[in-house]
Amino acid sequence: MKKKIIKVFPKIKLMKGLEIRTASVGIKSTTREDVTLIIFRELANVATVLTKSKTCAANITWLKKIRNSGKAKVLFVNSGNANAYTGKKGYQNVIHIVKTLSKIYECDVKNILISSTGVIGEQLPIEKIIQALHTLALKNNKLNQNWLSFAKAITTTDTFPKGVCKKTSIKNKSYNIIGVSKGSGMIAPNMATMLAFIFTDANLSSKALNRLLKSTVQKSFNSITVDGDTSTNDMVSLFSVNSKKNNSKYFLDNEILDTFKKDLEEVAIELAKKIVLDGEGAKKLIEVEVSGAKTNNQAKDVALKISNSLLVKTAIAGEDANWGRIIMAIGKSSSSVNPNKISLNIGKSAVIVNGEICKDYSEEKVSEYLKNTQINIAIDLSLGKGHHKVWTCDLTKKYIEINADYRS
Amino acid sequence: MKKKIIKVFPKIKLMKGLEIRTASVGIKSTTREDVTLIIFRELANVATVLTKSKTCAANITWLKKIRNSGKAKVLFVNSGNANAYTGKKGYQNVIHIVKTLSKIYECDVKNILISSTGVIGEQLPIEKIIQALHTLALKNNKLNQNWLSFAKAITTTDTFPKGVCKKTSIKNKSYNIIGVSKGSGMIAPNMATMLAFIFTDANLSSKALNRLLKSTVQKSFNSITVDGDTSTNDMVSLFSVNSKKNNSKYFLDNEILDTFKKDLEEVAIELAKKIVLDGEGAKKLIEVEVSGAKTNNQAKDVALKISNSLLVKTAIAGEDANWGRIIMAIGKSSSSVNPNKISLNIGKSAVIVNGEICKDYSEEKVSEYLKNTQINIAIDLSLGKGHHKVWTCDLTKKYIEINADYRS
Repeated sequence: MKKKIIKVFPKIKLMKGLEIRTASVGIKSTTREDVTLIIFRELANVATVLTKSKTCAANITWLKKIRNSGKAKVLFVNSGNANAYTGKKGYQNVIHIVKTLSKIYECDVKNILISSTGVIGEQLPIEKIIQALHTLALKNNKLNQNWLSFAKAITTTDTFPKGVCKKTSIKNKSYNIIGVSKGSGMIAPNMATMLAFIFTDANLSSKALNRLLKSTVQKSFNSITVDGDTSTNDMVSLFSVNSKKNNSKYFLDNEILDTFKKDLEEVAIELAKKIVLDGEGAKKLIEVEVSGAKTNNQAKDVALKISNSLLVKTAIAGEDANWGRIIMAIGKSSSSVNPNKISLNIGKSAVIVNGEICKDYSEEKVSEYLKNTQINIAIDLSLGKGHHKVWTCDLTKKYIEINADYRS
Repeated sequence: MKKKIIKVFPKIKLMKGLEIRTASVGIKSTTREDVTLIIFRELANVATVLTKSKTCAANITWLKKIRNSGKAKVLFVNSGNANAYTGKKGYQNVIHIVKTLSKIYECDVKNILISSTGVIGEQLPIEKIIQALHTLALKNNKLNQNWLSFAKAITTTDTFPKGVCKKTSIKNKSYNIIGVSKGSGMIAPNMATMLAFIFTDANLSSKALNRLLKSTVQKSFNSITVDGDTSTNDMVSLFSVNSKKNNSKYFLDNEILDTFKKDLEEVAIELAKKIVLDGEGAKKLIEVEVSGAKTNNQAKDVALKISNSLLVKTAIAGEDANWGRIIMAIGKSSSSVNPNKISLNIGKSAVIVNGEICKDYSEEKVSEYLKNTQINIAIDLSLGKGHHKVWTCDLTKKYIEINADYRS
């Protein structure tokens, strides 16, 4: 990896046109903040990508319903309870929250986004939440922006809050992209218990945001995997905060957005990598890069087969240069590969070139390299120009400890 | 599960018409037997199902080549080295073994089956193996049948040898079905590092064996999963041992074979369950039964999504009645499900009925049930008549221990 991913939360400046308010409602734990409101002074433009789970949570059902609104007044996020598989009552609770917020902030219900993460199958403590919403509304109108408290309030088993900020530009004018994310288990492509919220003060239409978000998610949040599981609650939203001072027209032209798109991807990939770095029990962040595939899809498929292989992930946890397991995982490819054309690098060491072990391959050197906390595995299938990168983590005993005992 | 699966190796009688010879060649360990020859007095009829790995081992390439032979004189099995990803030299070693055996036992090379399991990417110690084959040939022609030593000699990380025998009948005549298997990690549908050899003294054509084996494998070896990984070396063979005394004609009629088919399935399922029971680090055997799916394929897909979920497997390891994770895993279904129609039983406890938590659901009772070593999870999707059972195991710290450190 070119850039080492770190766990430190960066200093992120306020963004004009939005307020962050967090509260401790005691949904699961009683000692931490677990509800966040992001309130947009003017309606923000928004695009959202949702989990593909067939048993999605109540809030996701709501978001599907308002999908075409493209405008947001309030984003509500709670941790500690997923409000998933909670039946009619769970959905009624969503409506209760949405209606309360639409009254307080004088907007249409379809401008209220709601996001939940936590335990499945339990009802939200709705009375406590509604009360908190009223209390938060009272907060003396002072802006209480604090990205760190937002990032902390949306975590569950995360061990550190995740945030990224970046300066970008459109037509030589400078803008900001700020993102926070959460997630550390149940992470897999097609979304996982992973929430990410990205904000920009560049004035973009919801149509442009949609297009940008979809392509970005493929290269970032849909290219990470911790355990192959998919959550009922995942979502990624991209907001364009429409501050009054910024009356520039909406940017729709593709080329004009090239720099912005690149920077957005960088922010999203870094947020995604932070999730993997926080993979439950993980000690190592692993980048699997597949090139020379017939198509990009084949590259992604092979990269995921490697990244999801428990045997590969445990070998790396053990710092064991057992490259045979990588070959085994390539063999799980959905489409055909030519074993005699495969080349494999671990870090800077060439292990296999055109299907043969390198003459100067040194297991000692690779084992030494595997002691690092950020590991690169690069495969060239020599079949075409398809390319994809996936990020995963090692699988350690700690993962089992965390997950065998999550609710206790 | 109706029948509790046990680790004890049963007493299995000799089978006329075949010899078992095992030797300690020192392929990986120097203290145990690691090469087995099964020598058929007359050519046996045989059917084999092979791994779908795109990076399959050298012996699998050989077996694909002789696939249509349908006759076996000798089955060679070695453990300790998979002879996978070993290039031209690896395949030359296979040919060397095959030619040596065809000379010693005076048969065509295409009647020599070869099976390997163990570490990937290392060459076989071919000189030692060829020498052992000559030594084994000398063994004073006395029958040396010992199913237990065969079952032991094919193991790698297995913690117990696996064998099953069953009396069966065709047209009121009594026959035997005897099977041994190995495998405890890298186990997943579409075959895994899993070898199984099943023998019968019923005189069946290779065409009949093929048909029987294919349908049996779907319900047994392709319905188990330990870690979702697929090996380069898997195979299951079914032999009809053509003893001279048994000159009955080949049975091809479907109905006549009904009892035999049922009994063969039972043997294969029991061998498969023993592999799961020996899942690396496993403490529990889990049966996931999905009914009411639109199709059998959907039932299998959902059962596998649950069985491969690390979060489900770790929850069961922790004896935690976290049924929400089962719902999450159902949500990963490739085709649509109706959350409001799902019913879920854990053991005899109804947890969900038609999408709602049972009024008398007792978490305490389910947690108590999860202390058992054999666990049943039954899901009814209420969409149709599709049905499938999959067997898996819990995921414990021991799995990580074994696999982070396999080669050391």
